[in-house]
Amino acid sequence: MKCRVCRGPAVIDLPRHNANFCPEHFTRFCRDQVERAISDFDMMQPEDRILVAVSGGKDSLAVWDLLLGLGYAADGLYIGLGIGDYSDTSGGYARRFAQQHAEPRGAKLIEIDLVDDYGYDIPGGARAARRTPCSACGLSKRHLFDRAALDGGYDVLVTGHNLDDEAAVLFGNVLRWQTDYLGRQRPVLPARDGFPRKVKPLVRLSERETAAYCIVSGIDYLVDECPMSAGNKHLGYKEALNEIEVRSPGSKADFYFSFLRRAVDRFAPEPGTGDADRADPGVLAPCARCGSPTSTEVCAFCRLVERAGGSPPDDTPARPVTLGRRGGPDPTGTPSP
Amino acid sequence: MKCRVCRGPAVIDLPRHNANFCPEHFTRFCRDQVERAISDFDMMQPEDRILVAVSGGKDSLAVWDLLLGLGYAADGLYIGLGIGDYSDTSGGYARRFAQQHAEPRGAKLIEIDLVDDYGYDIPGGARAARRTPCSACGLSKRHLFDRAALDGGYDVLVTGHNLDDEAAVLFGNVLRWQTDYLGRQRPVLPARDGFPRKVKPLVRLSERETAAYCIVSGIDYLVDECPMSAGNKHLGYKEALNEIEVRSPGSKADFYFSFLRRAVDRFAPEPGTGDADRADPGVLAPCARCGSPTSTEVCAFCRLVERAGGSPPDDTPARPVTLGRRGGPDPTGTPSP
Repeated sequence: MKCRVCRGPAVIDLPRHNANFCPEHFTRFCRDQVERAISDFDMMQPEDRILVAVSGGKDSLAVWDLLLGLGYAADGLYIGLGIGDYSDTSGGYARRFAQQHAEPRGAKLIEIDLVDDYGYDIPGGARAARRTPCSACGLSKRHLFDRAALDGGYDVLVTGHNLDDEAAVLFGNVLRWQTDYLGRQRPVLPARDGFPRKVKPLVRLSERETAAYCIVSGIDYLVDECPMSAGNKHLGYKEALNEIEVRSPGSKADFYFSFLRRAVDRFAPEPGTGDADRADPGVLAPCARCGSPTSTEVCAFCRLVERAGGSPPDDTPARPVTLGRRGGPDPTGTPSP
Repeated sequence: MKCRVCRGPAVIDLPRHNANFCPEHFTRFCRDQVERAISDFDMMQPEDRILVAVSGGKDSLAVWDLLLGLGYAADGLYIGLGIGDYSDTSGGYARRFAQQHAEPRGAKLIEIDLVDDYGYDIPGGARAARRTPCSACGLSKRHLFDRAALDGGYDVLVTGHNLDDEAAVLFGNVLRWQTDYLGRQRPVLPARDGFPRKVKPLVRLSERETAAYCIVSGIDYLVDECPMSAGNKHLGYKEALNEIEVRSPGSKADFYFSFLRRAVDRFAPEPGTGDADRADPGVLAPCARCGSPTSTEVCAFCRLVERAGGSPPDDTPARPVTLGRRGGPDPTGTPSP
């Protein structure tokens, strides 16, 4: 197996690209794919200040490393979720990456700890709020990532969602034809009042490719799936798509990118039509507790914290935000990597 | 396991309906589902003359039996495809059903034989026309079924596509976002000049249910898959959907019916827009050989017959047909059951 570029010994084969690569040219391939995603979808500008949502897993560490390698000013944000050993371990990977790969390039890791800072953890918060753990986790992370990006003056919030993530979420949304989610499932969610711009630079790379990128780049990452995600439907959707990909390499990328080219616009919300399937998410007001945009008096995050018996840090400003139409919940429905 | 209706011993469990049934009430359940499909999608009227495309498999024999049971005047049409033993055996099942179940109710089986009547078979035709066997078979059956329905003065052509078929085809069309096919994937294709009305009364019944219907109704059917369908992608799509169905009963029906409720209209062709993704199939002219509507001088079927060294029966009229917009190829892309 020889590298397509230099004919040296290849370490990975990519059937959907009909190519094999050596470590050096695989790294370059990954960088090219990220550059192309950023360019194709106009994700960010060279001068932007970027905040990367970091979990300690392969995707978030790979995207942070790739953006730093491309010269972006990208800090990381790690949220300790209080999921036992899993959180302790994942935090360790995030901190080690920051010390070894980010700080030498002038970037820092910001940390928030749910238990220390907000007085609850995901297992307890989920029970108290009668949500699934993935729902309580997604809600907490979206709120805190959004807030940190805005409060820290970042231009863009980056998440490590890869091609497999996006294809699986698309499959889930298509299986139920959730037209409102389909209309918003794009690799870029533009900034709106109270919500930062959110982008997914890894959409052109598969899970296997981000894992391989970390390995050849000497990045240690947490391999384990979150112990609370057992039975998560998205894992089943990924398996189904993987079987199809094995039979027809490229199917997954074709599914996702032809959706963006030919279908997503057909599901775009039409504000004010009163069509329930193209729901207008409506005008939001600031949460009475934290000032974040919400359709209820107190936002879902503050209600979760309250039910779980926690409270926000004393120094949290009840930030008044200019409010307009809502960006809405992340249609991905999955925990951010 | 007890029947939901009479509490007698049940012979089948239907997880997606959260119900078990005895033979009698399962038969009634199947009839109700077919009646509901006919009514929901306005498939046909009680006085319509119906032609059922019959293969000798479970679906086509079940739908023929169910329609006769509901009092419809429904003849069958069997096409001998010349696929070795498979065709000999399937013809036997079709004829036996006709003798035992259809003729006693005043219905007849019409037969066409590709080899005897047109001088070619599917394996040879596929090779000669450089098509896959499934493509040559689908083309031949569509042409001959359409033609027989129109020439015989039938109001409706019925095919035995079941829920699994439709969901798998939808999945295939969605995987590539084939927007033109998506816009036409409905359980009813209205009649157009040169094309009969086509309907699929089994869309509310799964493959497992049509098989069970045949068994409890004493209908012998050909169990084997067509030997030429090995590697057919739709079998892979069915497997993928079946795995999802096992985890979440009802997923398959939800996928298909929520598509019809909320999405299909978004893919409807817009004639004359010049939008390649919403292609106007264009105006057709009669085939110079057979008179069927086509976008080329000689239709694809007549070209297939010619390349395969065959010829139409001497008594085939070059039927002049009034032509308008084309119904287009069947977006199902699968061989009719």
